[in-house]
Amino acid sequence: MKAILVVGDGMADRPVKELKGKTPLEASKKPTLDWIAANGICGIMDPIAPGIPPGSDAATLALLGYDPLKVYRGRGALEAIGSEIDIKPDDVAFRCNFATVDKNLTVVDRRAGRIETEDASRLTQRFKKIHLKEDLGVEITFANTVQHRAILRLRGPRLSMMVTDSDPQKVGKPVLRVSPIDGTPEAQRTADIVNKLTQHFHEVLKKDPINAERVRKGLPPANAVLSRGAGKLPDVIPLPLQYGIRAAVVAAMPLVKGVCKVAGMKLLDVPGATGTYDTDVVAKARAVVQAVRSHDFVFVHVKATDVASHDGNAEKKVMIIEKIDKMVSSIVKGVDLDETLIAVTSDHTTSVLTGDHEGDPVPVAISGPGIRTDDVEEFGERTCAKGGLGRMRSVDLMPIIMNLLGKTRKFGA
Amino acid sequence: MKAILVVGDGMADRPVKELKGKTPLEASKKPTLDWIAANGICGIMDPIAPGIPPGSDAATLALLGYDPLKVYRGRGALEAIGSEIDIKPDDVAFRCNFATVDKNLTVVDRRAGRIETEDASRLTQRFKKIHLKEDLGVEITFANTVQHRAILRLRGPRLSMMVTDSDPQKVGKPVLRVSPIDGTPEAQRTADIVNKLTQHFHEVLKKDPINAERVRKGLPPANAVLSRGAGKLPDVIPLPLQYGIRAAVVAAMPLVKGVCKVAGMKLLDVPGATGTYDTDVVAKARAVVQAVRSHDFVFVHVKATDVASHDGNAEKKVMIIEKIDKMVSSIVKGVDLDETLIAVTSDHTTSVLTGDHEGDPVPVAISGPGIRTDDVEEFGERTCAKGGLGRMRSVDLMPIIMNLLGKTRKFGA
Repeated sequence: MKAILVVGDGMADRPVKELKGKTPLEASKKPTLDWIAANGICGIMDPIAPGIPPGSDAATLALLGYDPLKVYRGRGALEAIGSEIDIKPDDVAFRCNFATVDKNLTVVDRRAGRIETEDASRLTQRFKKIHLKEDLGVEITFANTVQHRAILRLRGPRLSMMVTDSDPQKVGKPVLRVSPIDGTPEAQRTADIVNKLTQHFHEVLKKDPINAERVRKGLPPANAVLSRGAGKLPDVIPLPLQYGIRAAVVAAMPLVKGVCKVAGMKLLDVPGATGTYDTDVVAKARAVVQAVRSHDFVFVHVKATDVASHDGNAEKKVMIIEKIDKMVSSIVKGVDLDETLIAVTSDHTTSVLTGDHEGDPVPVAISGPGIRTDDVEEFGERTCAKGGLGRMRSVDLMPIIMNLLGKTRKFGA
Repeated sequence: MKAILVVGDGMADRPVKELKGKTPLEASKKPTLDWIAANGICGIMDPIAPGIPPGSDAATLALLGYDPLKVYRGRGALEAIGSEIDIKPDDVAFRCNFATVDKNLTVVDRRAGRIETEDASRLTQRFKKIHLKEDLGVEITFANTVQHRAILRLRGPRLSMMVTDSDPQKVGKPVLRVSPIDGTPEAQRTADIVNKLTQHFHEVLKKDPINAERVRKGLPPANAVLSRGAGKLPDVIPLPLQYGIRAAVVAAMPLVKGVCKVAGMKLLDVPGATGTYDTDVVAKARAVVQAVRSHDFVFVHVKATDVASHDGNAEKKVMIIEKIDKMVSSIVKGVDLDETLIAVTSDHTTSVLTGDHEGDPVPVAISGPGIRTDDVEEFGERTCAKGGLGRMRSVDLMPIIMNLLGKTRKFGA
């Protein structure tokens, strides 16, 4: 038996007036998701705990069976490893942005005009050799990823992830001084290092001819690096070790890839899986159908539902849900249903009204052999609440799926 | 958005034969509570954990989002702070009763004939200067509240709340020797202090002319002080700090007030809110409607349902529930429903049959904007069990409400 887990990022929602009091899930035509609900067992899940809005990192950890309240150690390292930057257990990594600041170090543009990846790469070359006035005693790696995005990795002794962000998250605010969150000398040392680097980056960037060229072209100069989300790798047992399974993932987001990599899953590269509205769900379905032949567990993640929610676009969200339904339809047609469990859920609620992650539970449905089916006929936030799984936590989903695959270990004798 | 939480103390119950197998909630006419259920989302909540009967202190802590299993440190300090007796974090406070004992220190009347507050106050004056043979090294404060009730507060170094009661809780039993619950020297020291005080109080009281006068009048003398419920303040983050909200409470019971004070809520004084059958629910409703204009969260507590249950009076309990319904009706009419969440629940089950707090879950209903409504039409223990919230714990209610207000902080990034 195999299992496929389909996750629509931020797909769960609240009732929306413009959808006649329905949620986007309830308002969309999704015959395959409804078929899974009707032929399966349904429930609702709290991603972290009732009422707590989850970040995508914590929510994805939970879906893979890792309790975020126990294992979560920040986003930076997960994002880094998902961006193919090697991270060791003691490294501290930060998410960074190339940004535009004025003379007083006030942030003018947090993304330096969404600088093209090529320009960012050229600027990143300047940091290949980081010469500071003093030796900080750590190995410093800076790598840009897509557009303005980059990763800063610190490797060495006595580092801590317990430091604040230099990114003020708002235009018009000054670049923040990084400070220790706890009272340890490690946190103080790490904060000092990041503050020195922030200054160094600014000094190097402000004199750079690439920025002079950008200004001539009327583009905002990328004259600062903002850092946030200091993190270490979560200390988790990879799925292959924990359950004796082969696991794979189809996802576009570096963060989701990072979590899955930490979980020991194979990252499948699917051209056309973009993480945006135009993502190629047919290609994703094809990749899943192929992967399930040689893996016990395949996780497929679609980001665009969350994007539509953050954009406050209910119509678009309905459209993406219908696209996900088509993807699942291709998967259902492509696999042996006598030997395959299919689970559908969302990592968290993202409200098209607030544009934010919310702490409401998410619906879940699991169909396949051996399932204790219930009488839920439709996949939605309110219908699934009446299902046979009741109310549970996202961290419980993985053991439930693994139990159905016969992969969980007995507790007791 | 604002939120109002209405709590009927011990309002939840079990089916009662004399109510034709209905619970008091099910047997009462409560159109407004039913309207909230019909237009909201319902569920059931375990106040502490399934099957565990909660004390009022623990149950109220849970309703305000504090896990009693983690933060609870006895009732004494909560009762004291709710009676406007100042309590510092290291103080140990006890609930006390003036009582009547015979020559052998056997309890004859646990409440000294429910001695009038005036007599109790005069007796308390005798303790203004407590002169013991030896210096106990602590500051001792004794204050009477209503009738036979009083508070003993110990302030000083090396005190512990881990000591037993001197109150045997039954007539015909001797005053108990207070002993340490754990093996710490602090508990031993605290027990010794209370034992010395118990003896001192008895010696002072038995010679007092007020008691001689009481005996002449045929009243039981208040010749002893019984102590119970040693406690310290729970170490909690006040709601304003945790959620950035302004919170207020309308309640009559010192214990509930104490918990709310610890939670950083404003205590609203409502003349006519008595904590008994004759409590003025119209005045309470008015106070809530006014408070919600300047507060984000208003908690209104009605004690009389619990009183009726302890009295074993099902008819009376139905009557009080109908009174609560009228209160909620006034609240519903007084607020802007487009901007206000209203939640209704009970702190615990109090059975009119057993007269005791029981460990059954309580019903809950929340109505307001953004709610994922369900198809429950009536507010009751059994109807709400089929609601969209499923089964949760009381400690989860506050994060759920704060999430709907947009006040919870994201976990993860």
